[in-house]
Amino acid sequence: MRMYDIIKHKRDGGELTNEEIDFFINGYVSGKVPDYQVSALLMAIYFNGMTQRETTALTFAIRDSGDKLDTSGISGIRADKHSTGGVGDKTSLVVMPIVASLGVKVAKMSGRGLGHTGGTIDKLESIEGFNVDVSAERFKRIVNDVGLSIVGQSTSLAPADKLLYALRDVTATVDNMPLIASSIMGKKLAADDDCIVLDVKTGSGAFMKTVEDSRRLAELCVEIGKKAGKKISALITDMNVPLGNNIGNSLEVIEAIQTLSGNGPDDLVEICLALAGEILFLCDMGSRNECLSLAKEALDSGKALKTFAAMVEAQGGNKNWIYNTDLFPTAKYAMDVCAPKSGYIAGVDTEGYGQASLLLGAGRNTLSDKIDYAAGIVLKSKPGDYVKAGEVIATLYSNTNNFVNAKEKLIAYTVISDQRPLKRALILDRVE
Amino acid sequence: MRMYDIIKHKRDGGELTNEEIDFFINGYVSGKVPDYQVSALLMAIYFNGMTQRETTALTFAIRDSGDKLDTSGISGIRADKHSTGGVGDKTSLVVMPIVASLGVKVAKMSGRGLGHTGGTIDKLESIEGFNVDVSAERFKRIVNDVGLSIVGQSTSLAPADKLLYALRDVTATVDNMPLIASSIMGKKLAADDDCIVLDVKTGSGAFMKTVEDSRRLAELCVEIGKKAGKKISALITDMNVPLGNNIGNSLEVIEAIQTLSGNGPDDLVEICLALAGEILFLCDMGSRNECLSLAKEALDSGKALKTFAAMVEAQGGNKNWIYNTDLFPTAKYAMDVCAPKSGYIAGVDTEGYGQASLLLGAGRNTLSDKIDYAAGIVLKSKPGDYVKAGEVIATLYSNTNNFVNAKEKLIAYTVISDQRPLKRALILDRVE
Repeated sequence: MRMYDIIKHKRDGGELTNEEIDFFINGYVSGKVPDYQVSALLMAIYFNGMTQRETTALTFAIRDSGDKLDTSGISGIRADKHSTGGVGDKTSLVVMPIVASLGVKVAKMSGRGLGHTGGTIDKLESIEGFNVDVSAERFKRIVNDVGLSIVGQSTSLAPADKLLYALRDVTATVDNMPLIASSIMGKKLAADDDCIVLDVKTGSGAFMKTVEDSRRLAELCVEIGKKAGKKISALITDMNVPLGNNIGNSLEVIEAIQTLSGNGPDDLVEICLALAGEILFLCDMGSRNECLSLAKEALDSGKALKTFAAMVEAQGGNKNWIYNTDLFPTAKYAMDVCAPKSGYIAGVDTEGYGQASLLLGAGRNTLSDKIDYAAGIVLKSKPGDYVKAGEVIATLYSNTNNFVNAKEKLIAYTVISDQRPLKRALILDRVE
Repeated sequence: MRMYDIIKHKRDGGELTNEEIDFFINGYVSGKVPDYQVSALLMAIYFNGMTQRETTALTFAIRDSGDKLDTSGISGIRADKHSTGGVGDKTSLVVMPIVASLGVKVAKMSGRGLGHTGGTIDKLESIEGFNVDVSAERFKRIVNDVGLSIVGQSTSLAPADKLLYALRDVTATVDNMPLIASSIMGKKLAADDDCIVLDVKTGSGAFMKTVEDSRRLAELCVEIGKKAGKKISALITDMNVPLGNNIGNSLEVIEAIQTLSGNGPDDLVEICLALAGEILFLCDMGSRNECLSLAKEALDSGKALKTFAAMVEAQGGNKNWIYNTDLFPTAKYAMDVCAPKSGYIAGVDTEGYGQASLLLGAGRNTLSDKIDYAAGIVLKSKPGDYVKAGEVIATLYSNTNNFVNAKEKLIAYTVISDQRPLKRALILDRVE
């Protein structure tokens, strides 16, 4: 078998065999197939697509390209959720403690943020002492004892995904459904959970801009997950508006803690309960309605917050910060952004908000950039709210006193109109 | 400017600007743009094509990626011909001596063979002592004194072409009209001749299998040549049958010498005179008919042979071999291939014949393979001839006594039929 023939096969519109896909992935990971042949194949896939069978084979090859997560000795049903990424998306910090507090085991690996979307690992690191790099044995012990541990991605899991993603990122082959699905699912399946819930975001702050694309991606992923013998479903959720009010690492942790304490913003609470309920449902904890009630009860009773605090403590973090968020360091500088005119906030460019947050220091452009944990944006008004000219619509935080660009972006990306906008549904669809 | 955006631009069906094309080629040659981005762009070009303007810009960027051939001090009009490659194609060894003997200056760089097509440089090296790597000064002196010198490709000329070709060869991006045209013309234009005649082969032994594709390629190349201010035309010639009777390096040189001595096979003579006439016409040596007569006269009078012998001598080759071809070493082993049944030879798979010759040792699969100069095939019958069962249709030569595969190929690739085939035209079209 030669990589040349595999490229030509796909270039000419053929359907790759499982053997061809395995040859390509194994060859790439072992260094026998060079980058330049892989990028040519990726571009051919971009143009000619992949069938469901090819996408599944690619996913399994990625899953099998390295180790599987060692879950030996973890008792009970393991579940995970995956979000396709958005702005202000701190749902993992709320959803996983909820389900863990109800007996589901969560042994979660999370990523770091890049570009306008944040990463759960970065957010957790804004808590004093929190260690995202614990040993495999300690990770399993925490999962068994607390129910929940969240650590950084292991490089030995699905290494093909890391290689492919880095290559796609510089060769304009990211925007392709089979490649996106196999990347998400290859990584998830290597973690080998029993139940998986996907949160596929859609809208101006998401990777998928339309509900149709989000649904296609969700269907593809769910199908692959089932082929792998997993219990899996997906919610399509709105990302035309940042989720909650806080954008930025410690700002989002604080908002997650508020939510876990029963004081979360409506949109965040709604999505977190829906995702937690969906996980509980897949874990056979009752009907969908019963599972939703269970999730709500875990929030209201403070059980979920307690689980979160226990995980923070087990991973070396300062638990006091969880019960007193005033302990989080605040940014040196703050600046209000005021409405330039009166009217309803009709809509925002969510990706633009994410980029403004990036400019303040809350994110990274390249993986080696340092993050300013306290930097970010707190929204005072959201779409649907009426604001008066001069009224503060958001406050920017940063440790560098350089707000001009972020402020301009925020104003430019906020549409104020005389017309009250229609209320959008947050949860648009479910794929199972 | 970023290579990423250039890939995306082409991927999305856009027309690259001249600046984008220059950035890509200069970046690639200087090592700033990596292989894997170039191969992604090449695949995007494969799918979305290039306009005439883009192809011209790419050609000029390739031309300008290194040195131009130093022709200072060469007096008179300089001309060259380029063949897209075929089996048994020894026209350069006949055409260039003809036009040089009539006063046109030929300072020619030629390539080595790869796969089923031969290379002029390899053929010349089968002559004892012939040096294809003379200094620039000696090259120019020979051109001025003899009228003709043929040397190997300089690595400093159009280095982008060498890099791109090597990459296309392993990423299934060779078969693309704009990339083929820019490769041919980028290299040719770097040699900076005044007149260029292209011999675009078409048929089973050629890269272009149909007349339509050949014509498109010819039109593209001629248009680019004109944009570069050159006198240029192209002949579309048949390559459904090997040219002449001999395939293999010294076998082809011997047949070229026979042709220069007035004893060439009809098909080879016809194409050589047409190409030589076309060059002379572009060099303003008279009407097309007058130029054809001039070419014929140069063959018949022995003038062209004398020029060829003078070049061989000037480049260190043994001139005696030219006047006595029995001096060429013969292969240790020979084997006849006989007709399996009686009938007309209706057609042959010319590429298959080329591959049989490769198996005998006459070519190389990779650039580091050694060539057996005496190996090859001498055809005794060609399409249109009637043969009896058991009659010798070809003789195979090799220094390894391993004829089985080549013999099988030759029989498999020769169609014998009761019906006499229609006579094909050799010269199918002219593009100017």
